[in-house]
Amino acid sequence: MRIALLGGTGDIGEGLALRWGHDSDHELLIGSRDPEKAREAADAYLEALSELDVTASIKGFANEMAADRADVVVLAVPPYHVGDTVDAVADKLDTDTVLVTPAVGMKGDEDGLHYHPPGTGSVTALVAQRAPDDVPVVGAFHNLAAGKLADIEAAIDLDTLVVGDDADAKNLVVQLAEEIDGLRALEAGPIANAAEVESVTPLVINIARYNDDLADVGVKFF
Amino acid sequence: MRIALLGGTGDIGEGLALRWGHDSDHELLIGSRDPEKAREAADAYLEALSELDVTASIKGFANEMAADRADVVVLAVPPYHVGDTVDAVADKLDTDTVLVTPAVGMKGDEDGLHYHPPGTGSVTALVAQRAPDDVPVVGAFHNLAAGKLADIEAAIDLDTLVVGDDADAKNLVVQLAEEIDGLRALEAGPIANAAEVESVTPLVINIARYNDDLADVGVKFF
Repeated sequence: MRIALLGGTGDIGEGLALRWGHDSDHELLIGSRDPEKAREAADAYLEALSELDVTASIKGFANEMAADRADVVVLAVPPYHVGDTVDAVADKLDTDTVLVTPAVGMKGDEDGLHYHPPGTGSVTALVAQRAPDDVPVVGAFHNLAAGKLADIEAAIDLDTLVVGDDADAKNLVVQLAEEIDGLRALEAGPIANAAEVESVTPLVINIARYNDDLADVGVKFF
Repeated sequence: MRIALLGGTGDIGEGLALRWGHDSDHELLIGSRDPEKAREAADAYLEALSELDVTASIKGFANEMAADRADVVVLAVPPYHVGDTVDAVADKLDTDTVLVTPAVGMKGDEDGLHYHPPGTGSVTALVAQRAPDDVPVVGAFHNLAAGKLADIEAAIDLDTLVVGDDADAKNLVVQLAEEIDGLRALEAGPIANAAEVESVTPLVINIARYNDDLADVGVKFF
């Protein structure tokens, strides 16, 4: 399967690229607004994996081209770029492309980070609103400990929560997530339930801030 | 220490009473609007513990009397009763009484439960607003799996998140929480961070609904 990581030069993109590169055989397409940056990131990920004697398929492209070639498109961009990125790649998407959104709107003050969703109620709902009508949208990979994810030699034991209105698309993302060693995907229902899922991201950042022994923290449900 | 559980006949009150009764030597005061119901619940908790050869101090009172006698007052009431319960016991509280709130405002639809805070932004902030100015307020025990907590023979391995603006009060609640075997208390910052903490409760209920193998689910942070 071909997975595009738009904004794949950032930390969550790096983590997913390295983990899928290490643990699966998928073709990974790193997207960036600047294709040269995308190619540099792809080369760096390949080199990090080759040091572990892992050969992966990771290539860099402009976002539009990465989206055009992919079966699954992950919007690994900051929340304020999500809408524009969807618009930029919209005509490359079709009913066979699953659009995955891990972004979370947050605002900070002296106390910590707070959930700050767009007017649609969640970033996932914003993506669903901006994407072409027939493109299935899935929210996932929000609250992974990004540093730990990108540290490919660090074992993880974390959950990711998956929301979406299209059962097939959601099942595919659950399966892709669970191909990453140590990652379990839990269903959290339709996109209407995305706000509670996205809210976990500022929470884990606040927990890391207020507990000295819990840097770069993730979550598991029992 | 004397801990009052107002609304202590409900599920979270029962769980905390049984766990503290089993794992600590604190005096537990079960509060209810109906003192007879409180006494019946206290007797039932004592009997459940005596079957495990545990002798505890658990007595039932009207909410006001329980609050008057306690060092720590837990508002284990439904969210729509929190404000009234604070008002009812306000003149029994003082600067030496720590007021603890585990309640969460939620609303449900066909998709699941959604976080539905009061206008103050969180139930914890509502309690802080309604309580006398000099009474320290701490949010804790929100997202425990209530059924598992009340099943005293079930081992737990869960986190609770603690928010508050008074460091001493917060430290006391962290300590009391960690006297329960298998429960870890994590700091999540000031009351301004309570919304993200309270949001975990509808999330875990949604996760239990959408994952067959995860009934009565709680959370841990790694």
